[in-house]
Amino acid sequence: MGSHDPTRSLSARVRAGEPAAIARLLTRVENDDAVGREALENLLPDTGRAHLIGVTGPPGGGKSTLVNELIRHFRAEDRRVAVIAVDPSSPFSGGAALGDRIRMLEWHDDPNVFIRSMASRSFGGGLARTTLGAVAVLDAAGFDPIIIETVGTGQDEVAIAQLAHTTLLVQVPGMGDSIQTLKAGSLEVGDIIVVTKADRPESNDLARDLRRMQTLVTPEPGARIWQPPVIKTSAVTGEGMADLISAIQFHRTWLSETGELDQRRRQTAVSQLAEHLRYELLKQAADPSRSGLFPMMVDEILAKAITPQRAATLLLALLEHERQP
Amino acid sequence: MGSHDPTRSLSARVRAGEPAAIARLLTRVENDDAVGREALENLLPDTGRAHLIGVTGPPGGGKSTLVNELIRHFRAEDRRVAVIAVDPSSPFSGGAALGDRIRMLEWHDDPNVFIRSMASRSFGGGLARTTLGAVAVLDAAGFDPIIIETVGTGQDEVAIAQLAHTTLLVQVPGMGDSIQTLKAGSLEVGDIIVVTKADRPESNDLARDLRRMQTLVTPEPGARIWQPPVIKTSAVTGEGMADLISAIQFHRTWLSETGELDQRRRQTAVSQLAEHLRYELLKQAADPSRSGLFPMMVDEILAKAITPQRAATLLLALLEHERQP
Repeated sequence: MGSHDPTRSLSARVRAGEPAAIARLLTRVENDDAVGREALENLLPDTGRAHLIGVTGPPGGGKSTLVNELIRHFRAEDRRVAVIAVDPSSPFSGGAALGDRIRMLEWHDDPNVFIRSMASRSFGGGLARTTLGAVAVLDAAGFDPIIIETVGTGQDEVAIAQLAHTTLLVQVPGMGDSIQTLKAGSLEVGDIIVVTKADRPESNDLARDLRRMQTLVTPEPGARIWQPPVIKTSAVTGEGMADLISAIQFHRTWLSETGELDQRRRQTAVSQLAEHLRYELLKQAADPSRSGLFPMMVDEILAKAITPQRAATLLLALLEHERQP
Repeated sequence: MGSHDPTRSLSARVRAGEPAAIARLLTRVENDDAVGREALENLLPDTGRAHLIGVTGPPGGGKSTLVNELIRHFRAEDRRVAVIAVDPSSPFSGGAALGDRIRMLEWHDDPNVFIRSMASRSFGGGLARTTLGAVAVLDAAGFDPIIIETVGTGQDEVAIAQLAHTTLLVQVPGMGDSIQTLKAGSLEVGDIIVVTKADRPESNDLARDLRRMQTLVTPEPGARIWQPPVIKTSAVTGEGMADLISAIQFHRTWLSETGELDQRRRQTAVSQLAEHLRYELLKQAADPSRSGLFPMMVDEILAKAITPQRAATLLLALLEHERQP
């Protein structure tokens, strides 16, 4: 019976790790179609297992090279690795994928490596929604770790830090003065700070500056203490890669033992729900055929009859009211 | 009576354009406190007048210099100019503001120029919410245009394009190969493409490449045709600034005449409502003392009893149900 149900068979094939089925489901999730939604529901029990590693930093900082080294290492440990390369700024879905295509070529014959490039141009900034959907698919397909790589300076970085269990903040020497580094930095989103191109002499200065900067960051009150290590790596000499892998594992252990992992999972669930809600609302508002509470509120905002703030509060009050007996 | 109400007097003073009152209200809006909310409601009728100009592009691309030239020009026309400099990636609220402090120094004695730097580290990516709040305040204070400058490659750019009426996408020559330009590009978010440092010979190649790239972008179906001009500017020689200002004015006229301005206003209202809703929901979920429908849903998601997608749909269905008689 189940084998005649195309949805069921798609999720079954994803669960079995079939690359073609995974690729197809990822597209369906991106397009947010009915089959994709149903498959995600079927796969729900198989999610939440993978270690999510975020890799973020300025463009041209050697992130792709670093990710490739990570793949190589995890494969040596016989782990199945997936990479979601998020490039929200690319206006051409193909353009951004050039680097990934080169990587994909390298791992093309290895069914235990899956690389997916995502250029999110979807309205309403659906980046977090599609990325989370992709994580769920790859998680259910048995990939662990799942690396989420983003070209990001800005809110993307923060969003990724909220998705990933362990975030690597990549910094590259020789990108300009320290103010620039500061601006591009977002030091606090990194669980591990990686200085790439350690074969260059300037990398020592950068690592030193970053360590100094860390002393300026005041931890948020109540935050569990994790002092992000600054690790220098070189794709040329191989320096630092073993240290980096150890640091990732150590951070994972720390997350579990301190209960911080549960905290992060909760935070992710909250973000997921909020993102989907936002997405659904935008979809509703964009549909002119639809008359609902949300489009009505938009009209009120346009008429300056209500602030967006109060409109949101009002909508939520209605929700709360609804659950009273 | 009104003069004894601190909220009322704050909004009255903002309406009168008092810099200290504006600065104070902006801080309150950022902190999302009760006085700030109420003042925003009082100011609501005075909003929606200013022309919102977005300026976005990669770091180090000469955006600040360009904005300074724009201020100079608008001041020559005796217009009151406000700048919101958004730097979401700065972990140090002060660090990012260095460039702005230098600018602020230049315009310090001119009450008709207001520059505000915003480093958004607020949880849940409150950037759009606080930026929109700041726009409302400055709009009510009589500034027009309001320039929103962002260090952005990514979702920020898209978010800004949704906020601003006219978005300048700044590109700088000599930042690397054309693929890098492509990645950092987000060509389609720009209503006007500005190539800075026109005094450098490479700027000709970049402008030519950008014009070529434009021919590759297929306009979205149903989109009104606006062909973004590519304009070369130089802060050294002054080249292109007059053209740029003309293009901004022309785009503004085009927006009004085609009805596109109303479209963009609606889109902004939708984004505002969605952002506030998201923000309020995240706040609710983060408050452990609060038991509500939203935290309940988060628990269900964590228990893998429901997908975030379905949880969101369910919450919205409840809202729809609520408005039935």
